[in-house]
Amino acid sequence: MAVYVVGHKSPDTDSVCSAIAYAELKRKLGTEAIPARQGELNPETKFVLEKFGFSEPELLTDGAGKKVILVDHSEVGQTLDNIDQAEILEIIDHHKIGDITTPNPIFFLNMPVGSTATVVKKLYEENGVEIPKNIAGILLASVLSDTVILKSATTTDTDVKAAEELAKIAGVDDMQELGMEMFKQKSDLAGKEPRELLFRDFKDFNMSGNKVGIGQIEVVSLSLLDEFKDPLYEEMKKVKEEGDYHSIFLMLTDIIQEGTELLSVTDDVSVVEKAFGKKLEGKSVWLPGVMSRKKQVVPFFEKAFA
Amino acid sequence: MAVYVVGHKSPDTDSVCSAIAYAELKRKLGTEAIPARQGELNPETKFVLEKFGFSEPELLTDGAGKKVILVDHSEVGQTLDNIDQAEILEIIDHHKIGDITTPNPIFFLNMPVGSTATVVKKLYEENGVEIPKNIAGILLASVLSDTVILKSATTTDTDVKAAEELAKIAGVDDMQELGMEMFKQKSDLAGKEPRELLFRDFKDFNMSGNKVGIGQIEVVSLSLLDEFKDPLYEEMKKVKEEGDYHSIFLMLTDIIQEGTELLSVTDDVSVVEKAFGKKLEGKSVWLPGVMSRKKQVVPFFEKAFA
Repeated sequence: MAVYVVGHKSPDTDSVCSAIAYAELKRKLGTEAIPARQGELNPETKFVLEKFGFSEPELLTDGAGKKVILVDHSEVGQTLDNIDQAEILEIIDHHKIGDITTPNPIFFLNMPVGSTATVVKKLYEENGVEIPKNIAGILLASVLSDTVILKSATTTDTDVKAAEELAKIAGVDDMQELGMEMFKQKSDLAGKEPRELLFRDFKDFNMSGNKVGIGQIEVVSLSLLDEFKDPLYEEMKKVKEEGDYHSIFLMLTDIIQEGTELLSVTDDVSVVEKAFGKKLEGKSVWLPGVMSRKKQVVPFFEKAFA
Repeated sequence: MAVYVVGHKSPDTDSVCSAIAYAELKRKLGTEAIPARQGELNPETKFVLEKFGFSEPELLTDGAGKKVILVDHSEVGQTLDNIDQAEILEIIDHHKIGDITTPNPIFFLNMPVGSTATVVKKLYEENGVEIPKNIAGILLASVLSDTVILKSATTTDTDVKAAEELAKIAGVDDMQELGMEMFKQKSDLAGKEPRELLFRDFKDFNMSGNKVGIGQIEVVSLSLLDEFKDPLYEEMKKVKEEGDYHSIFLMLTDIIQEGTELLSVTDDVSVVEKAFGKKLEGKSVWLPGVMSRKKQVVPFFEKAFA
């Protein structure tokens, strides 16, 4: 029975490419592994797959009866439907430790680094398997995507070293150029529906019993989002009702200015002040220097909700 | 601020010795790390520490305000009190993935191997740190203890290889002899109170919302337990009432005969049949070949309770 390697809902580049790269490693080690995705790919990820010659992994949203390896997440809210009816064989991640549990001992490696791709690269090395050139390309793209071209607060020395080595294997001379090409894809918002933009990179969290959704849109300039802010806010209100959320937050992140405007729809505005020491001004608050959801936003909300 | 490295409640040899060995590794890597234990040491562990020249680690039961590294567990029910007020820096384990979550990304390595000591040995190697002779001794003892001298169903090739290499470093010529010496300590039950025996190796689990306690006593012959069975059963009933448990199970494991008599006090006797396909005969059921709580008992109860 084949094993599916799958990242989180609202798949991003790291989630998709780490699944492809880790499935390839497992195949080389003798396991019949198939990469999968839980949803539509964003324009950046499509660009990366095309650039390095990969097709889209197959869609998998229901875990019932499947053997799975989870990459880039360990939260029930972000994983396959009916995960309790799946057999989880491994988890490879770089986030906070989530609420997925298993009935059996499994291999679980979580490292506090900038991308799951960094962890996957390490696992190629540990297993003595050479990283193919095109796999190095998508792993490099994943590191650059998740670390905002090695600028995000989550970036570690391990990520920088991994990126340099992967660039060499992939034959990428200018990482910065590749990164900017990728972020331009992300920043191309023309004609996009608010719901599509909101869910492009959106994660559910269980924070002390409260359902909290946190999305992020990264652009090269916030001004690109001017016309989208009001429609996005209205969409957040709708999604909050439909999904019975306590709060929906949307990070509008300017990767050049290096900061985030946090749009907030919440049952309790005080959580924003508790988390960041700043009050909402209207619908949002500006958080200078904040670019990472997992390191600069989630932990502070976790404390505010505790 | 010092970091405490601590194993589970009702500490066993692997839990205590892995904490000592991993704290030593962290110190060599520049972290002020202190090994700790959550309770009284069992006779086997005392024997092992004395044999290889270690004193008892300090007692730590409350995590409030502490920085901690957890070894040999990832279950809230098995960890420090007030763990929500501690900062968890790392988790090193070899069990099923438990319900401990963190607000931040951390290093979490769980391997499906026979002992946490096997994982700790690997981390010495990964970090390029030589394993000191006496540390190799307690790591070897941990492997032998957790795998019932490499006979338990949890034993992997990795454990066997680790044990052989550790024996060489520690200067232990005969692993079998060391293992039997250890298990004789465990089997010396004369004058022991039923409550002490029950809690010597006892773990709490949250199984689909039900509080379940599972203890284990390993002896070289079940006949050593004849006079203790009735008092142990009465004690289990008391503990079930006091602790508001759904079920208390006690594995009486014969390491020579290779099987377990499972004493059961439960609100629902059908879970035993669901788990093992055999009905209770009076207070217990005989499970041939069953020696490992984590691999041969916990997963089956998890499914029965699901």
